Amino acid sequence: MKTPFVTKNQLEKITEQYPTPFHIYDEKGIREKARALNKAFSWNKGYKEFFAVKATPTPAILKILKEEACGADCASYVELLMADKCGFDGANIMFSSNDTPKEEFLLAKKLGATINLDAYEHIAFLSALTETDDFEFPKTMSLRYNPGGVFAMGTKIMDNPEDSKFGMTHEQLLDGILQLQKYGVQHFGIHSFLASNTVTNDYYPELARQLFEFALEIREKTGVTLDFINLSGGIGVNYRPEEVENDIAVIGDGVRRVYEATLTANGMGQVKIFTELGRFMLAPHGLLATRVLHRKKTYRTYIGVDASAVNLMRPAFYDAYHHITVLGKENETAREIVDVTGSLCENNDKFAKNRSLPVIEPGDLLVIHDTGAHGFSMGYQYNAKLRSAELLLKEDGQVRLIRRAEKPEDYFATIEGFDFE
Amino acid sequence: MKTPFVTKNQLEKITEQYPTPFHIYDEKGIREKARALNKAFSWNKGYKEFFAVKATPTPAILKILKEEACGADCASYVELLMADKCGFDGANIMFSSNDTPKEEFLLAKKLGATINLDAYEHIAFLSALTETDDFEFPKTMSLRYNPGGVFAMGTKIMDNPEDSKFGMTHEQLLDGILQLQKYGVQHFGIHSFLASNTVTNDYYPELARQLFEFALEIREKTGVTLDFINLSGGIGVNYRPEEVENDIAVIGDGVRRVYEATLTANGMGQVKIFTELGRFMLAPHGLLATRVLHRKKTYRTYIGVDASAVNLMRPAFYDAYHHITVLGKENETAREIVDVTGSLCENNDKFAKNRSLPVIEPGDLLVIHDTGAHGFSMGYQYNAKLRSAELLLKEDGQVRLIRRAEKPEDYFATIEGFDFE
Repeated sequence: MKTPFVTKNQLEKITEQYPTPFHIYDEKGIREKARALNKAFSWNKGYKEFFAVKATPTPAILKILKEEACGADCASYVELLMADKCGFDGANIMFSSNDTPKEEFLLAKKLGATINLDAYEHIAFLSALTETDDFEFPKTMSLRYNPGGVFAMGTKIMDNPEDSKFGMTHEQLLDGILQLQKYGVQHFGIHSFLASNTVTNDYYPELARQLFEFALEIREKTGVTLDFINLSGGIGVNYRPEEVENDIAVIGDGVRRVYEATLTANGMGQVKIFTELGRFMLAPHGLLATRVLHRKKTYRTYIGVDASAVNLMRPAFYDAYHHITVLGKENETAREIVDVTGSLCENNDKFAKNRSLPVIEPGDLLVIHDTGAHGFSMGYQYNAKLRSAELLLKEDGQVRLIRRAEKPEDYFATIEGFDFE
Repeated sequence: MKTPFVTKNQLEKITEQYPTPFHIYDEKGIREKARALNKAFSWNKGYKEFFAVKATPTPAILKILKEEACGADCASYVELLMADKCGFDGANIMFSSNDTPKEEFLLAKKLGATINLDAYEHIAFLSALTETDDFEFPKTMSLRYNPGGVFAMGTKIMDNPEDSKFGMTHEQLLDGILQLQKYGVQHFGIHSFLASNTVTNDYYPELARQLFEFALEIREKTGVTLDFINLSGGIGVNYRPEEVENDIAVIGDGVRRVYEATLTANGMGQVKIFTELGRFMLAPHGLLATRVLHRKKTYRTYIGVDASAVNLMRPAFYDAYHHITVLGKENETAREIVDVTGSLCENNDKFAKNRSLPVIEPGDLLVIHDTGAHGFSMGYQYNAKLRSAELLLKEDGQVRLIRRAEKPEDYFATIEGFDFE
């Protein structure tokens, strides 16, 4: 069972000022999560979480995370601009991008962000920029590693790195360090992402083991002692209530044990650990509030709500599960099997398919859980639908509008010769 | 083989003024397509195409279609606003929506649009609006039909209407007409959508046969002679060059033969035929121009371009095929198997996977075909990426900017308390 961080009464009151649909975030939960994460890795002196901005690119959220000693992991020009504007200095910005345009490398360099190179070929690309755009290689750089093959834990195949566009091969990475040294780079880190949204305490320790062993090999083959190892993202959340939530204390301790056995034992106990968690940090601390507009019965029973894939695309895009609570009916038996639908002219615009829920009536307020990450940020405007507001439930119980709902004039803003008043 | 409607020289010249990526549309092709469609159905006195605005919600495009005697099929509040602003009067607006909010019904009524009712339950909803919001039932209404079951043609299953959230059942529709008569509705139409993006000249005639037979049954059981029958969308395009393009003249003639045998033969030769084509009308007449930024080789060879799923989501969302032409290398042998990727931090951000193409180098200009429908309109801003411009190649060969590219300040516009200069 998942319990929303707001009660029915609270949410009904909020809707008097801010009509549904909207995303609302829980400041208290976000801060507690960040503190638990930092505590779990406090054994590592240089530990830092670089929050994956793409998950929740909202300045009010980024500022909370900044206060909790997190950095920002940016993937694009505008994310870099936003991080800078939110007050993150270069040391607190990781630029993990791929297929990167020149302008983004130049901005990252200008801000002093750590560039995490996705491709071996990017070294020559940056070298060319030293001629054309006065680019200077930074003193510290990161290289993204893709070990290829399949990534398995025990007998379970978690993902297929070999099919992934990200990162460089083992040999490319080793040679890349040597190449970058010729361009004056002095400090190095590595980064790897092998599986998405894992719900197991064993993923990070297993990933860490592979990267730590690679770090020893890097030292042996290039003479370079890494400055940091970035475990990136991949720690997920239990979208389904029957899944067991990741325990970040257990995960941090698991990484510690591998670290001590591999790195500390080999005189590399100074290596900093970085993470780039987005989903884990934010998903459970945001929810999408939506009101039921219609019941419809044809070959199935449909519950039509005022949110749609515009507000949360994951169910349509990935057929992802998001738990739904019918406020005020938490203790009622799930007596109906329904599809919960949005209003897009796309049959995949369904928040739930064949879901057992209490009997729902128009006017009911639904909470769609775990939308704090990759919720608003993946929203589109298909069918010329407008994206919703984002609200922050502050620690003191007050509600603050942190992003207003779009208006028709926002939708029309880029159309040439179309005067809308 | 697919040939772009612009040459390499033309497009290179355009990029001097408008940097890639951008969508460009071909006015000549759009007008010819609209004329071919209108000609194919010219045997029907009341025929009208209501262009599906969701496919290409761009006023410059809508105005061209309006000049070619098309109406607008709107699915949302903002699409209604846009159609009105583009000068479509109520008689030329179809409002085909589902899970419809009250405000949208009221606006559709205010504009005099034809409301195409998706749900039987919407009759009671509208009836309640007569009490609360002075809603008056229009004199003419449409009902959306979902026959359930599977939709097969010969032995081929085309789609599963029974799993679709759209439309009402056979019995609901029959009763719906009787109910609506009580509310003063005098003229009726029906609408049905049974399969998406069909590439066969037989789909519309088969759909028409089912709807025409249903029209006879409706007359028999309710006494109502339908005013119009809306075949909606579903006529697709040959995204793959090996597919045979639909022949609209053959399709129109196929519908005519069924019409004459079913409706004319039974004294219903006055029924108007409506269509709501989006993809068929526009997809081939738009393309996405993008320039190659990077080559990368790991376990595959990657061609990194400056467009991404932000500009065209169909490959990422549906694993949809879009043909790619490497300008200037049209006659070269496809000698490499590559993935063509965008820069999103999502492994599904690939325009092509394991595609055989000529050897592509950074700087090459690529044309991604058939993006004229459901291209720009499905774009999102994930990773804080900005959406591209839309250009119109006019009949006289001039190029006009019809939607400017987004700027960072557009992205930041709705964020509260975030001053960006």
